[in-house]
Amino acid sequence: METDAPPGDHAPAEHEHASHGYITNKDDYLKRLRRIEGQARGLQNMVADEKYCIDILTQVSAMTSALESVALGLLNDHLNHCVVEAVAEGGDVAQAKLKEASDAIARLVRS
Amino acid sequence: METDAPPGDHAPAEHEHASHGYITNKDDYLKRLRRIEGQARGLQNMVADEKYCIDILTQVSAMTSALESVALGLLNDHLNHCVVEAVAEGGDVAQAKLKEASDAIARLVRS
Amino acid sequence: METDAPPGDHAPAEHEHASHGYITNKDDYLKRLRRIEGQARGLQNMVADEKYCIDILTQVSAMTSALESVALGLLNDHLNHCVVEAVAEGGDVAQAKLKEASDAIARLVRS
Amino acid sequence: METDAPPGDHAPAEHEHASHGYITNKDDYLKRLRRIEGQARGLQNMVADEKYCIDILTQVSAMTSALESVALGLLNDHLNHCVVEAVAEGGDVAQAKLKEASDAIARLVRS
Repeated sequence: METDAPPGDHAPAEHEHASHGYITNKDDYLKRLRRIEGQARGLQNMVADEKYCIDILTQVSAMTSALESVALGLLNDHLNHCVVEAVAEGGDVAQAKLKEASDAIARLVRS
Repeated sequence: METDAPPGDHAPAEHEHASHGYITNKDDYLKRLRRIEGQARGLQNMVADEKYCIDILTQVSAMTSALESVALGLLNDHLNHCVVEAVAEGGDVAQAKLKEASDAIARLVRS
Repeated sequence: METDAPPGDHAPAEHEHASHGYITNKDDYLKRLRRIEGQARGLQNMVADEKYCIDILTQVSAMTSALESVALGLLNDHLNHCVVEAVAEGGDVAQAKLKEASDAIARLVRS
Repeated sequence: METDAPPGDHAPAEHEHASHGYITNKDDYLKRLRRIEGQARGLQNMVADEKYCIDILTQVSAMTSALESVALGLLNDHLNHCVVEAVAEGGDVAQAKLKEASDAIARLVRS
């Protein structure tokens, strides 16, 4: 992944000025994501060493749960900050933010 | 593979001597896991740069799907090799392998 | 809605007087839930008639997706009505509603 | 759902002669599915009575977990009976059954 490329279909500039809510726990998220990165590396070693499939699958399940937990944390922060602010503004902005949040929730539930 | 070994968090040595079925696609799995590791690193950059939450969540969903897909591939390989071999042997070995596979499937469905 | 009522397993009477947001699509939800009820009955017939397991599993997956879709619809309605109203009121009420919504999302993602 | 219609893309005749593995727990499955049917009816009452969204979502999550549990049971039975028998026969039959089981697992994991 090109990490400096704009993810999704947003121009980065759109959001650049804003503080995005999850910032209060930034270090915690970074720590958890580093651990997840380590799990991905661990999985490569397990595959390279031809470890037992079931043990690899157990690690994949643990990693999926860790990722899910990061996602739920980010979503919670997002609702409490961005969505709350947008609702305070009201109108189309609020509608758009709520629609966007609902779509993200649906992707999480279905992924 | 020592089929009467307890499944769970056995010492790696237990399975070390065996070829574990998924080996035919080893390079493909390694490539996919390296990409997943890159996604984990990309997510850290997004959080560090305070990118928009929804964009981060989109990346998390993509990464979860990629992991799920690796898991389903490994499980398929496992059924086609280890489980088939164990069933051919029959008896307790087969029962234990089938139980172990069912438990791994349950963890995947619930994670 | 009594916004200062404890979320969780309240007595139904608590919310009885209130219009709860999803009401605009009530008939649509009822129709979808009746179809889901029919699927549950259909599954009983399939089991009673000893239909092929894989065919039963296909029906279970369809039913799970239908339920998930109802849940996402209800959650979306909830965010757009109850949560928006609570945020407009602000303070503890808003905090409680947001926490409650996040917990419901987590249950959906994990179930 | 037309319960006597062939589900999926199998002609029913194909499997009619066979005992399909889950039969040993038939009464248990029927009991669990009746309870799930009752949950679907309960959800209709909750919507009709305009109960609180979050309470309805809690019920939907419980129902989804119950369905998932039925699916995992059926899958386990299927692996232990149909797949084991097919593997004993070997050849294309075994390959087809394993492919079919893997596809069903993927649908469950993704639904």
